[in-house]
Amino acid sequence: MTDMHAFNARLGAVADRIEETLDRLLSDRVLPGEITRPTRLMGALRYSALGGGKRLRPFLLVESARACGGEEAGALVAGAALELVHCYSLVHDDLPAMDDDDMRRGRPTLHKAFDEATAILAGDGMLTLAFDAMASEIVHPDPAVRIRLVAGLARASGVGGMVGGQALDLEAEGRNSPDGKPLALGEEEIRMLQAMKTGALLAFATEAGAIAAGASEEKRAALLAFGKALGAAFQIADDILDVEADAAAMGKATGKDADRGKATLVGRLGLQGAKAERDRLARVALEALAGFGPEADMLRAALRFTVERGH
Amino acid sequence: MTDMHAFNARLGAVADRIEETLDRLLSDRVLPGEITRPTRLMGALRYSALGGGKRLRPFLLVESARACGGEEAGALVAGAALELVHCYSLVHDDLPAMDDDDMRRGRPTLHKAFDEATAILAGDGMLTLAFDAMASEIVHPDPAVRIRLVAGLARASGVGGMVGGQALDLEAEGRNSPDGKPLALGEEEIRMLQAMKTGALLAFATEAGAIAAGASEEKRAALLAFGKALGAAFQIADDILDVEADAAAMGKATGKDADRGKATLVGRLGLQGAKAERDRLARVALEALAGFGPEADMLRAALRFTVERGH
Repeated sequence: MTDMHAFNARLGAVADRIEETLDRLLSDRVLPGEITRPTRLMGALRYSALGGGKRLRPFLLVESARACGGEEAGALVAGAALELVHCYSLVHDDLPAMDDDDMRRGRPTLHKAFDEATAILAGDGMLTLAFDAMASEIVHPDPAVRIRLVAGLARASGVGGMVGGQALDLEAEGRNSPDGKPLALGEEEIRMLQAMKTGALLAFATEAGAIAAGASEEKRAALLAFGKALGAAFQIADDILDVEADAAAMGKATGKDADRGKATLVGRLGLQGAKAERDRLARVALEALAGFGPEADMLRAALRFTVERGH
Repeated sequence: MTDMHAFNARLGAVADRIEETLDRLLSDRVLPGEITRPTRLMGALRYSALGGGKRLRPFLLVESARACGGEEAGALVAGAALELVHCYSLVHDDLPAMDDDDMRRGRPTLHKAFDEATAILAGDGMLTLAFDAMASEIVHPDPAVRIRLVAGLARASGVGGMVGGQALDLEAEGRNSPDGKPLALGEEEIRMLQAMKTGALLAFATEAGAIAAGASEEKRAALLAFGKALGAAFQIADDILDVEADAAAMGKATGKDADRGKATLVGRLGLQGAKAERDRLARVALEALAGFGPEADMLRAALRFTVERGH
């Protein structure tokens, strides 16, 4: 069993290597087939993608690859590609027409620090660069493996995954309809929305680790199941923390998510019901790793320390 | 020599097949690895990508592949992927924070017909789907070919290509600087900006046709050179048409590009100089095809009828 100290040390070590990888991917150096990399635009990408975050998605990818005996060098680049997709999604979500957020992680959001047009383009640039990185030879010598990762990344992050989830979330909150009324989503609709908006990329992280490591279909399916359950549990844990933090700070039991008409499972199942569901999903995730030995202990620790944060 | 009638017939036939391919790619059918495709979001993608345009980029790709003896089925999907990138770029360029255009091709732009958040997401979704399509087996049975196309698409459309060109264009027009003053770009800077903003995707169209057809390096390089010169000539032809149309309509010699501080080669070289440069580039493009016989006649016709439109 991995204790919290060992987990945090490993999380930090992977984050450092992801930072280095992103720094290299986001340099001014022009690649074959490119013409020039505009300085101000690259500054915007670097502002958003460097210097922050736990790098949870790359960590899950790198540790899943390691659990399957894969090389770390390839997993780091694949992980950095995933992180670029995550970062672009934050930049576009923060835009005035979307969540209209001025601050993120204690700093002005990109469209505040630069401008809105640059934020749109920087997001587009990060998404495009993610596919470039995922296609690069260092990820895996076999093009068949890389093309599978490229296709998987597209499915997880596109209209049937993350982008689609964000679109459904806007509809659920009534933010893109003429009357502006939030929709009353049922429990299953909320689960699907969350599986798309935040779950798809987390689940792809663990699956991609297995693919990059050339793992068996059985191990790939097990890690995908782990990632799916972890992602769902993670989202509920987030919603619980939001409610509890607000209750503590404001002396009331509804969080800002509820104020904004945001559909969460806490709202549908109640706080106790949501905690029980989070714990059930954590057990499902743990069971998915039954075929792995100590080589998956970091993944088990990731589950414990990210999903059960509020304990 | 292909006459205009034969060229237009072939252009229309390819456009019809691209429309069918896009229609299939943008259907509600959920692919493996996707969860669901939200109806309203897919409606937005279909609104932008279907029902219009000459489909010049796919045409160049399909005809370049044909000139190298490639299969049309794969080239059509690769061409549709390219068209999705082109369509996403128009949607994001039309946004209020960018060019702020209300109309395109006689219809409301996507953010007017739907809403701004949906337009941002639809653009993101189209870009992502382009990589999905380019990675799909139908493009070419060999994953090494597909990964090369994926990487090439990323380079042509990313920070060192189309996205970077759009960022430079914003800077040149002073639209993302605090003082809002246009930059005075020199001739070489304008050429580079245009090579990125519009040239990169056109040049990749012809190169990708060669790659998808499994052509020799020599043929690939020739088609890339053709596409680069065609793209540069095409942009000058566009700028000339803009000036001449305005001169005819308004009785003055400056177009809206000039009003907006847009840097064009017409502004730097004068109308006669720009026409001479357009014709020089057209000759360079034609010479790049010297190693091809009648199998490249449609490409020669594309050069003639798109670049020399104003004659």
